[in-house]
Amino acid sequence: MLHMEQTIINVKNVRINDSFWNNRIRNAVETAIPYQWRVLNDNEPGAEPSHAAMNYKIAAGVEKGEFHGFRFQDSDLAKWIEAASFSLIYRQDPEVERELEEIIDLIGKAQQPDGYLDTYYILKKPEAKWKEIAQGHELYVTGHLLEAAVARYLVSGDDKLLKIMEKNVDLIRSLFGHGEGKIDSYPGHEEIELALMKAYFATGDRKYFELANYFIENRGTTIGFLDDESFKEFAETNKHHQADYYQAHAPIRQQDAADGHAVRAMYFFTGAADVALEKKDPSLVAALEKLWKHTVGRRMYLTGGVGSQGVGERFTIDYDLPNDVCYTETCAAIGLAMWSLRMLRLSPEAKYADVMERALYNNVISGVSQDGQHYFYVNPLAVKPDVAHYRADHASVEPSRVKWFGCACCPPNVVRTLCGLGGYVYTQEGDDVYQHLYIGNEASLSCSGGPFSLTCESEMPWEGAARITYRGAAGARLHLRVPSYAKNFTVKKNGQPVCCTVTNGYALPEGALSDGDTLEVSFEMDAHFVAANPRVTEDCGKVAVQRGPLVYCAEQVDNFEYLNSFRADLKYPIGMEQSELFGGIRVLTVTGMRSDAAAWDADELYRDYAPGSMGETPATLRMVPYFLWNNRGEGEMTVWINA
Amino acid sequence: MLHMEQTIINVKNVRINDSFWNNRIRNAVETAIPYQWRVLNDNEPGAEPSHAAMNYKIAAGVEKGEFHGFRFQDSDLAKWIEAASFSLIYRQDPEVERELEEIIDLIGKAQQPDGYLDTYYILKKPEAKWKEIAQGHELYVTGHLLEAAVARYLVSGDDKLLKIMEKNVDLIRSLFGHGEGKIDSYPGHEEIELALMKAYFATGDRKYFELANYFIENRGTTIGFLDDESFKEFAETNKHHQADYYQAHAPIRQQDAADGHAVRAMYFFTGAADVALEKKDPSLVAALEKLWKHTVGRRMYLTGGVGSQGVGERFTIDYDLPNDVCYTETCAAIGLAMWSLRMLRLSPEAKYADVMERALYNNVISGVSQDGQHYFYVNPLAVKPDVAHYRADHASVEPSRVKWFGCACCPPNVVRTLCGLGGYVYTQEGDDVYQHLYIGNEASLSCSGGPFSLTCESEMPWEGAARITYRGAAGARLHLRVPSYAKNFTVKKNGQPVCCTVTNGYALPEGALSDGDTLEVSFEMDAHFVAANPRVTEDCGKVAVQRGPLVYCAEQVDNFEYLNSFRADLKYPIGMEQSELFGGIRVLTVTGMRSDAAAWDADELYRDYAPGSMGETPATLRMVPYFLWNNRGEGEMTVWINA
Repeated sequence: MLHMEQTIINVKNVRINDSFWNNRIRNAVETAIPYQWRVLNDNEPGAEPSHAAMNYKIAAGVEKGEFHGFRFQDSDLAKWIEAASFSLIYRQDPEVERELEEIIDLIGKAQQPDGYLDTYYILKKPEAKWKEIAQGHELYVTGHLLEAAVARYLVSGDDKLLKIMEKNVDLIRSLFGHGEGKIDSYPGHEEIELALMKAYFATGDRKYFELANYFIENRGTTIGFLDDESFKEFAETNKHHQADYYQAHAPIRQQDAADGHAVRAMYFFTGAADVALEKKDPSLVAALEKLWKHTVGRRMYLTGGVGSQGVGERFTIDYDLPNDVCYTETCAAIGLAMWSLRMLRLSPEAKYADVMERALYNNVISGVSQDGQHYFYVNPLAVKPDVAHYRADHASVEPSRVKWFGCACCPPNVVRTLCGLGGYVYTQEGDDVYQHLYIGNEASLSCSGGPFSLTCESEMPWEGAARITYRGAAGARLHLRVPSYAKNFTVKKNGQPVCCTVTNGYALPEGALSDGDTLEVSFEMDAHFVAANPRVTEDCGKVAVQRGPLVYCAEQVDNFEYLNSFRADLKYPIGMEQSELFGGIRVLTVTGMRSDAAAWDADELYRDYAPGSMGETPATLRMVPYFLWNNRGEGEMTVWINA
Repeated sequence: MLHMEQTIINVKNVRINDSFWNNRIRNAVETAIPYQWRVLNDNEPGAEPSHAAMNYKIAAGVEKGEFHGFRFQDSDLAKWIEAASFSLIYRQDPEVERELEEIIDLIGKAQQPDGYLDTYYILKKPEAKWKEIAQGHELYVTGHLLEAAVARYLVSGDDKLLKIMEKNVDLIRSLFGHGEGKIDSYPGHEEIELALMKAYFATGDRKYFELANYFIENRGTTIGFLDDESFKEFAETNKHHQADYYQAHAPIRQQDAADGHAVRAMYFFTGAADVALEKKDPSLVAALEKLWKHTVGRRMYLTGGVGSQGVGERFTIDYDLPNDVCYTETCAAIGLAMWSLRMLRLSPEAKYADVMERALYNNVISGVSQDGQHYFYVNPLAVKPDVAHYRADHASVEPSRVKWFGCACCPPNVVRTLCGLGGYVYTQEGDDVYQHLYIGNEASLSCSGGPFSLTCESEMPWEGAARITYRGAAGARLHLRVPSYAKNFTVKKNGQPVCCTVTNGYALPEGALSDGDTLEVSFEMDAHFVAANPRVTEDCGKVAVQRGPLVYCAEQVDNFEYLNSFRADLKYPIGMEQSELFGGIRVLTVTGMRSDAAAWDADELYRDYAPGSMGETPATLRMVPYFLWNNRGEGEMTVWINA
């Protein structure tokens, strides 16, 4: 069943107001956005210079100098523009307004008369424009700038950047396509497709949809950039950079699994789902359902991370989920959340929301420190710092968040996601509104009866309780997600229990909603052990701990060195204790035994096993939510514990 | 206490005759030596062409062409000469004699008038002779050729190659040393030191010892090659190729652990131990004891493998012993056995023999297939073939033995070790003979009373039983090793129990030995579980299975896919069953449970833990000796099993 009458909700109409997320959003708005502005302008001591703003200044003729950074350096600033645009939902800040106007003005000045707009090629390699589609990232940069333009337009109504980007898109439309004299290809790094669909949803102009559709359908169908030097230079020497790295090994309907570069794959499927929604194309929807099922069923970490290998930043093979040398890039988890949101538009099934929530509450927000100024690119599920620092195969694993990256896709990505979180809470189809996440918010929506608002107060993720107040015109139906981990899910309407019809994991309370009605959702969330499919070698003999959407981890700082020496005794229930940590979170405790290293000589590697002589000691493992790890210095961490 | 009156036993005087080893030696003599001769002469279809013999032919002016192969290609042939020379102990073969004469003649013709002898530099880069000490391998090649020359001389009395090599060593002596106009350095890849000491022990000429002593003592003391381009070209871009890679970061007495390239380190310490023996130098002995203890106590796999990382083929940090991406090169385990033998000469303590035996019975002989024609370079302790084939961090792991390697150090190394195994059984100090390995053999030795022989018949490694017959002149004392795994160790003399004095793990039966005496050694060897120090992350929550010197492993072919889904129940004893495998070995069986993957949907990665709903199924794991793995096709294998 295809749900085709989607209302794409403007992110500014869902203002998050939530005890869990407010701090994070405030941190993003008040700390990370100014911090990143300084980094992008090379004004932050101790952080790697970005040069992203300077590249635009040079391209605009305002400064002299050379291009520095990666080919996709422009996109870091684009994501910052998107984040800053969203931030105005939460705080009107004249300084941010001024910075936005300044950078948008610069971008306009950097744009060439024909609409071209990529500072790497303008400044460094003009002869190679549009000749390095596989690696050039021109379309990727356009995508992020277009997303930024749409964000700016939706939140503030200012279409200056959108007009710049329309001209850029028109140039691309004139250059790409089937037929004589056209470049018949598709982006080396997907991103523009989903951005074009955002522009289409925001403006209604079908030219954006048509270009997105062309890129989605053409991929893996025509030879495209697979015949180019910029493809071959990597493909010839690296088996992990073949056509599948780019998801260009087959047309999307013939792809069986998410393959290749994880962020590329997530962005591709996100754009494809938007295209499928617009086209009402059952075969494309079926392909995406198959791909999503395979991805989350065989290639996703418990934290919602995807991408098992640093080389190629990519998916590997089914069930290959090493915990210490995974890649699980922050951007890839954001991509999985984005894709899952699009799947909810195609079909509101709670399984999509479960995964979206898993990614957001774990792998996405672990990407940023509590101080908002340190970032993970790679989010491993197990870290031994001495090993991570030493070993060549851990080269991409940082055991502590860092201030910035040379390749800095993740920091602005997590910040734009936090500031744009309102876009993930609801989807709407006609008068049917689906609440996917119990995140406190104030939403201003419309139904056939007229405008209405939803005010949600929530205790998630700590307790399964949310109270929703409906105000305004009657006519909307609110479908409430029943999370997969919820027990004894009940809804009260105006204080009285109300019967619900549950469809695909969404509960629809009986009776129409009208002004002043309240809905109280409540459910229990037990802390529980999770086991992995025995096909996952690395998780065999281990369990993880989860409560609600939160995956927990053990850190050395709360426990002892050699965390792997602990073994949980699954007979005992998981305990919960109020702590002083992180403003007073409750920590979980697991009962078991550990083999105490102190009972072993430092120069004694092996011992004949005999019960009681292995240094066995009763022990309790304290566990904190995964996303909070490494906020108290460097140390061992593990999500999966021996059992 | 230093034992300084060592008699270095000529390998030809200990002829192995043993039910376990005869097959392996016969395989080496009858199959591998002719096979490798063909490979080295580029006459073996399907194996990578070696070009090693051709390089000598070209250098000798017998053929025209260019050098091909690695800089150390000559050493592959040198190891073959050593193996073939030893093989004549077991089989006088006119064909091998002819081949030896042919290749030695070629080497003589390739030698330059000043004694220089390295085909890479003669043919390809004459201007760079002695200018690339860090990477050049000239001294390494000399070392292997000198070992070959000594083997040829000791077994057959033919000194033709020894004279060639003496001239080559004289050239090196004239070039290297302290003082004006000399190259004050040490080898980039150690090997010549131990070879020089072999030449010294065989000839008594102190010039060999003096050069070895210079190289050992100079290493890490003077700047040496650390100032050269051939060092810097790697060091500047690879943190794993710094001075410690070459064991040149400190003088040997100031080194704390075996660091760097594992084979280099093992060869270095082997040569140093021989030098310490000759010098009677307590500080050097103490340094080696410390290094050996640290190496086997913190950096050695249960199989006797060393070298935890493929990048740099090297040691990493203490307790870093991953089972799937280890390096554990066949050559490094051979090196550990060689070094341990030298430690036994310095001090006959059973701990050294335990490790020597562990390496020989596990990581060394796993390097060659049962057919003698397929080889492992890397000997992992856990393999999942699909992962090993796919992942970038498994690039050095082959899940099946291969016919040859471009860098083919291991195949001839394991063959020369098998053919020279007689050198590992005994050490002798005056009238005290120490039997370290219960390997059946016929030994012709001498003591103060005159010549005597030992005939040892053994049932090892399957049963703890050996019968030794003494013949000839009285006067020798035979010290019998008490293996660390032996239970109820007893000795009978001429059929009657005899009291023994046990010192450092060696039992000396009461009373003098005289012609016709028999000693019967017997001990029990239980199959038992082994646990690792909790500091070893990868082995926590797991056990291994060992019986006598043999480490066992589970293979998919005997069990099921997803071996890691099995969990041993340590309450049950390990079973032993007669099998039809490998000519009728007994396999070990471990009782436990497995989580059956069939009880999980292929697209279901995670499940809330509930006892009984994880697919738990009673299961028995069949285990075979580790060295036999991968002789029945490709499949999963693991040494460490969940428990």
